[in-house]
Amino acid sequence: MPHFLLVKVRESRRAGYRLSQAGNEASGSDLYVTLEPCSTTGRTPPCTDAIIKAGIRRVFVGCLDPNPAHAGRGVEILRSAGIETSSGIEEEQCRRLNEAFFKWITTRIPFVLLKMAMTLDGKTATEGGVSKWITGPAARMRVQKLRRWADAIMVGGETARVDRPSLNVRFPANWPFQPRRIVATSSMTEESLQELLPSGRTPEIFNYKKESWSDFLLRLGSENMTSLLIEGGSELAASALNAGIVDRIEFHVAPLLLGGKDSRPVLGGQSPVSLSEALKLKDLSIRKLGCDFIFSGRPER
Amino acid sequence: MPHFLLVKVRESRRAGYRLSQAGNEASGSDLYVTLEPCSTTGRTPPCTDAIIKAGIRRVFVGCLDPNPAHAGRGVEILRSAGIETSSGIEEEQCRRLNEAFFKWITTRIPFVLLKMAMTLDGKTATEGGVSKWITGPAARMRVQKLRRWADAIMVGGETARVDRPSLNVRFPANWPFQPRRIVATSSMTEESLQELLPSGRTPEIFNYKKESWSDFLLRLGSENMTSLLIEGGSELAASALNAGIVDRIEFHVAPLLLGGKDSRPVLGGQSPVSLSEALKLKDLSIRKLGCDFIFSGRPER
Repeated sequence: MPHFLLVKVRESRRAGYRLSQAGNEASGSDLYVTLEPCSTTGRTPPCTDAIIKAGIRRVFVGCLDPNPAHAGRGVEILRSAGIETSSGIEEEQCRRLNEAFFKWITTRIPFVLLKMAMTLDGKTATEGGVSKWITGPAARMRVQKLRRWADAIMVGGETARVDRPSLNVRFPANWPFQPRRIVATSSMTEESLQELLPSGRTPEIFNYKKESWSDFLLRLGSENMTSLLIEGGSELAASALNAGIVDRIEFHVAPLLLGGKDSRPVLGGQSPVSLSEALKLKDLSIRKLGCDFIFSGRPER
Repeated sequence: MPHFLLVKVRESRRAGYRLSQAGNEASGSDLYVTLEPCSTTGRTPPCTDAIIKAGIRRVFVGCLDPNPAHAGRGVEILRSAGIETSSGIEEEQCRRLNEAFFKWITTRIPFVLLKMAMTLDGKTATEGGVSKWITGPAARMRVQKLRRWADAIMVGGETARVDRPSLNVRFPANWPFQPRRIVATSSMTEESLQELLPSGRTPEIFNYKKESWSDFLLRLGSENMTSLLIEGGSELAASALNAGIVDRIEFHVAPLLLGGKDSRPVLGGQSPVSLSEALKLKDLSIRKLGCDFIFSGRPER
């Protein structure tokens, strides 16, 4: 009986393992992959070898490897081995699914997602700084998913001090791939951060007075970090947006109105003089999640 | 051939006229009305008489007249005349369609809709006060529809001074039912307002230092105003929300990020100390309109 295998890019390094688990039963199956199977030895042996060895009959590829050095080679090798192989299946969706990896593999710069939670009137906290919890359980579960996606998570120094976020994946429990934890600060030390954020990987520092955003991201990318999740606060968010390094924003909007000129706005920094200088968001979409709403879009460069 | 007639409550006073226009052709038709036909002589003769006279065969009523003195009487009269009459067809939607009239007819207080336009981060203007135009043409056309719906429109004194909104229905041109124009101010005179807002009905004043919101609304209701549209600015919006007199909010959100602690927030006033005191919005829904998004919901009392 033919099997159906769907392998996402983050799991692709485990595709060979899964095929070997399937054993003889994989023989004659159809294989669906979001990304072209690799044909080279990286952290694991080539996926193409595992696919050929498993006796797969047909392979459906979402999109080709964006790395120009590899693109099409995997498909070619499979075809040469007599496996019927198609590519470009739901290509747009597969690209979106893997947008972080694709950016990193072609530029060596991590994909940056800015996620903020706020009331409908754009506030993240009361005048006194109270911010827990604005959004409901479903949106907070979504944050866990984003943290699983991220290779590294960043917050500003004040957020680290005031909110003391764990910056860890807490769901599911004992998740083995905890992200790197980075705090943007010019005044705190790694020792003081370790005290603030005791559980998880040792907090690292992005000293924005000594290192530019672009140097920082190049460094992160050279360490094979494909994705950076920025979780606030408002000054860090404004700085990242103004630096033009944010690839996607995700704003979680709670059905609340806070009001008040002195409550905390979701974005700090300086307002431009003219409305035409406001940052435009492309492909902005919205969906309901539990009691909250999730806006997602790409800042225009 | 049977006809199909859909009559909304704001047009119901013209239902008799439309039936007389249809003449003999209305005979044997089905009639669909969102609200129970009136059985009394008000500004026009009873609708029930016109329906009977036109020879209508069946009547489908969205909801009964909410006025307890009338409820069910229209249906009864039609049935006595041998017309097959059903009620409660899409009742919830018809109630929503007529929510302003229903509130006013049962309480004699106008329905209050607060409409604000803002960027995704909750700003209405730059630090310098530039606010035109945040939203796109489709959302601005929606505002024309709200103005056609409203018996009266209100803005704050600063908005009148800075934005000089017409507060008129400009689409379609030569709309015959222009709303009353009201400015909330404790310092301006009707003469100075007439200079600021020259075209349209004479501006009226809501002096919030001399009259409470509830007295003002009772006065407006006693003058047969069923609906009040508040169009900002931020201090007036916060005052209305804090007074608990807003029945529905409609926030128009543009795909823009303005940022800046000193740009203008959509709501002024004082932030509550605790997040649990934030105003909750019930039945909050969202839809895309042109390039913007429209949030609609009811403040929890």
